[in-house]
Amino acid sequence: MLPIEQLLSEHAEIIEKRLDALTSVSDSDYPALFSSVRYSLLSGGKRIRPFLTLAFSELFDGDETVALELGCALEMIHTYSLIHDDLPCMDDDDLRRGKATNHIVYGEATAVLAGDALLTEAFTVASAPSIPAEIAAPAIRLLAHAAGCFGMIGGQMIDLRGEDERLDFEALLEMHAKKTGALIRAACLLGCLSAGITDPDDVRYQAAVSYADNLGLAFQVIDDRLDAVGSEEALGKPIGSDRESGKTTFLSFMSPEQALDYARDLTEQAKQALALFPARTPLCELADYLLARSH
Amino acid sequence: MLPIEQLLSEHAEIIEKRLDALTSVSDSDYPALFSSVRYSLLSGGKRIRPFLTLAFSELFDGDETVALELGCALEMIHTYSLIHDDLPCMDDDDLRRGKATNHIVYGEATAVLAGDALLTEAFTVASAPSIPAEIAAPAIRLLAHAAGCFGMIGGQMIDLRGEDERLDFEALLEMHAKKTGALIRAACLLGCLSAGITDPDDVRYQAAVSYADNLGLAFQVIDDRLDAVGSEEALGKPIGSDRESGKTTFLSFMSPEQALDYARDLTEQAKQALALFPARTPLCELADYLLARSH
Repeated sequence: MLPIEQLLSEHAEIIEKRLDALTSVSDSDYPALFSSVRYSLLSGGKRIRPFLTLAFSELFDGDETVALELGCALEMIHTYSLIHDDLPCMDDDDLRRGKATNHIVYGEATAVLAGDALLTEAFTVASAPSIPAEIAAPAIRLLAHAAGCFGMIGGQMIDLRGEDERLDFEALLEMHAKKTGALIRAACLLGCLSAGITDPDDVRYQAAVSYADNLGLAFQVIDDRLDAVGSEEALGKPIGSDRESGKTTFLSFMSPEQALDYARDLTEQAKQALALFPARTPLCELADYLLARSH
Repeated sequence: MLPIEQLLSEHAEIIEKRLDALTSVSDSDYPALFSSVRYSLLSGGKRIRPFLTLAFSELFDGDETVALELGCALEMIHTYSLIHDDLPCMDDDDLRRGKATNHIVYGEATAVLAGDALLTEAFTVASAPSIPAEIAAPAIRLLAHAAGCFGMIGGQMIDLRGEDERLDFEALLEMHAKKTGALIRAACLLGCLSAGITDPDDVRYQAAVSYADNLGLAFQVIDDRLDAVGSEEALGKPIGSDRESGKTTFLSFMSPEQALDYARDLTEQAKQALALFPARTPLCELADYLLARSH
């Protein structure tokens, strides 16, 4: 196991434990809601987003307790988006990472409400009295902006449009920057916030934005390339599903080799963004690790 | 026009104007999202919830600019809940107040996302830099709690259960306290927050809770009574629709006359809760006005 795999796994365990505690309810008149929430939230995974929050908090000597809460809030928002994206009226997916999707198990009404609940309770977590108000308020602004009309939801609207028409390269970049990039950027910036870094002109803030945006885009390029040439095992879904569904991807504009070069270049830029900071090693190793998925 | 009708109408105009400004976007790659959000949000109505926020802010000499922002955030959450409640997988309603519901006009995918967007952007509004962080953080905690698993979403879960089985009186009370009562209570408490009142032991805080809970319950009793004996015009939906759908209502437990007495009693208690405060007149008139709907 690589050092970064070890680190990811240790952090994932801490995050999983906290998400479990945040959503555990001993008694309720509607246990199905909590089962449904926990079914999707506690389904394992690498927890890349809250890992980024914790890693940037460590890089800049932030408050790790605050970083863990904010990272968990972000992961709850990420999970809500997966539940709603899978709904019959959206992508209509029955499986996610080999498991039945939320609405298949709990029915559509409960799945809609479980998504609503995760989105709502993320803000309960981020506004808890244990987080100083002068960190909570900008953190919530960041979360809501990343998840809202000009972030994730906007990206999903472009993605839905892409089902009917071919996107141009600019629209593809905008779609990814919003649909997945916005939350990845927020994850890194929440780590900065936990260290009291709130000024967009701060060199550390700007480094986090640059790292996040390059990493997020590299991740999408690798994902598209894997869909075209990777193994089903590495991908967790059937090969070629993007092409079959007629979706615009990076492979609509470049060859698999060019995509790999593009992802390598973006990864290099992500690492370069942190060049000023000696403790950047885990974040650089993460970028290399995500790139290595595509080999 | 009664003084309270005049006051409601004046406040509704201010609130409508602010909601318009908060959601107006000059240029976007996905105009349907904003149209869909604004279709449901700017559909008029009495704006009782943000009125309550403004009225409690005035009662306790709060900051009215802060109260308007928080009241608008709450109204956005209320509107999201209506859009999601109307979805085919929930109540499957084609009409609301005589207008086609959001998913009928914009399709299910956009309606789900418009609801998600309103919920998310409510927290953008409540965390705006114009609101002091020491008010924003508890306000967001209040909003998220009222809208979440132990508030509105919990109430909707009980309501869905009520479609399959008869609720007992206690469950009916819990359903209403959560499904609609929680947001009404939050509306009043946000007004208190805008005046710096955050301590649950403060007599003003407790008065707001008691007023809100009695008013909210009276409103539901009146609504159920109207459904059984009122005119279609006053109700905005066909008479007897609750009985036809087999829903448990207050009329499952009492006669229309008993329901009226119950609502009168609750209204009296709401007004009594504010007895200490000389400037309570508009809030008392509102309670009487809502009761008068049932005659």
